[in-house]
Amino acid sequence: MDDIKRLSFNQATVNSWSLEDAVRACERHGIPAVGLWRDKVERAGLSAAGRLVRDSGIAVSSLCRGGGFPAATLSERKERIENNLRAIDEAAELGTGILVLVCGAMPGRDLEGQRAMVAEGIAAIEPYARLCGIRLGIEPLHPMLADRSVVMTLKQAREIAANFSPEVVGVVIDAFHVWYDPDLYAEIENTRGRILGFHVSDWPVPLPDVLLSRTMMGDGIIDLPRIRSAVDAAGYDGPIEVEIFNKEIWGQPGDQVLETMKQRFIEYV
Amino acid sequence: MDDIKRLSFNQATVNSWSLEDAVRACERHGIPAVGLWRDKVERAGLSAAGRLVRDSGIAVSSLCRGGGFPAATLSERKERIENNLRAIDEAAELGTGILVLVCGAMPGRDLEGQRAMVAEGIAAIEPYARLCGIRLGIEPLHPMLADRSVVMTLKQAREIAANFSPEVVGVVIDAFHVWYDPDLYAEIENTRGRILGFHVSDWPVPLPDVLLSRTMMGDGIIDLPRIRSAVDAAGYDGPIEVEIFNKEIWGQPGDQVLETMKQRFIEYV
Repeated sequence: MDDIKRLSFNQATVNSWSLEDAVRACERHGIPAVGLWRDKVERAGLSAAGRLVRDSGIAVSSLCRGGGFPAATLSERKERIENNLRAIDEAAELGTGILVLVCGAMPGRDLEGQRAMVAEGIAAIEPYARLCGIRLGIEPLHPMLADRSVVMTLKQAREIAANFSPEVVGVVIDAFHVWYDPDLYAEIENTRGRILGFHVSDWPVPLPDVLLSRTMMGDGIIDLPRIRSAVDAAGYDGPIEVEIFNKEIWGQPGDQVLETMKQRFIEYV
Repeated sequence: MDDIKRLSFNQATVNSWSLEDAVRACERHGIPAVGLWRDKVERAGLSAAGRLVRDSGIAVSSLCRGGGFPAATLSERKERIENNLRAIDEAAELGTGILVLVCGAMPGRDLEGQRAMVAEGIAAIEPYARLCGIRLGIEPLHPMLADRSVVMTLKQAREIAANFSPEVVGVVIDAFHVWYDPDLYAEIENTRGRILGFHVSDWPVPLPDVLLSRTMMGDGIIDLPRIRSAVDAAGYDGPIEVEIFNKEIWGQPGDQVLETMKQRFIEYV
């Protein structure tokens, strides 16, 4: 595993870079894939972004993100679905096969009602995703991010996905969000054939913050080699995205972050 | 449910008060039970604390806390076990039947190894607890508190408890730690006969902090009435502790906190 063939640079890890900066950096550093964010794509212009990545030969491992299905009114829910359809178009234009879904939260006390809205939202976009050849990856978020996702465990993501064909709907496993789960390894095996992405970072101790707390692989307590082995053993052989939201890392020069990222990927993933 | 017969004031909610302050406040406010902390008991002196609560007629719903079993060396692990035996003595002296276990974390990458240390630690103290008539309540902590507990879900707490007699080892359900769990209601039913305590507070949105973020019932998104109904339906009819660690609430006059607590308990639990 001592190479970077499966490494993908999720561009959120160097937040200051434009989409072009991120793609050029992958070329410079020999990183074969990039994970893109819709706000960066919008700033670059969708057509220009599509041309840029096609010409570069850098693969787009995924587009972040669709989802956000729960909302207070039907019209808001329809808007969110419309927005997801546009995200599917964007994914197709960018040449990635995967749209990551962060399913959303209102927030309110009725978790089950919101979880039903998530399932209904995915049902509403699934036919269009199928038509466009885009797979939808449900990403459970850590239970501390209750204001962002009512889908909080891998089991739950898997159970929602199971309502749909594995050709269209699966899960994205981000180690930061699921590492603690006592049922993690059984659940990874249970998602066999549904794993559409694998994200890595690390969990520092103590955790400084709820939102921007994840850190570089090797600087925390997640057993990444074991989780990677389990994900590999469950049949996933696609890109492994490094996705880190961390103010300190955002303050470092991007090229230095990428050097560290490559080295840590080889050593710790 | 519109009374406070089952309300217990966990003294951590008003951090500035001594044990005597807390007991006197329960008398003043007509609160029938109090949850005590070992550091406060130590400051009051164990015998004096025991006399104080016996004379007051206020019930001691639980003592916080034992646990902390994972450690790097065998000698440290033995020290932790010794410390738990002392906590059992203290619980007996204070006239409570329940010692809450916050099971601990090292921290390190090997979660399963640490979880085995937790099970071994409980096995080491269980006979003494039985002898003293003290029940041990395993409290799973929210998965964001990975530096404090490798026991993070109710299912996991239940599975550890299942190795022991329900007369001695059970679980403590704190709504703040488990409310998000998609399997919560099934798991509460599964713990029937093992529920040794029920704690309430609320989950504000957005969550300001990892450690001191819980808030007063009604100021967050936890469906407390539903969780309480499920806990009641699973046969638990003991005290319901309000346990809140929150700097803002700690800054308020204690009597005001207790007034709010009573009102919110009646309205939201």
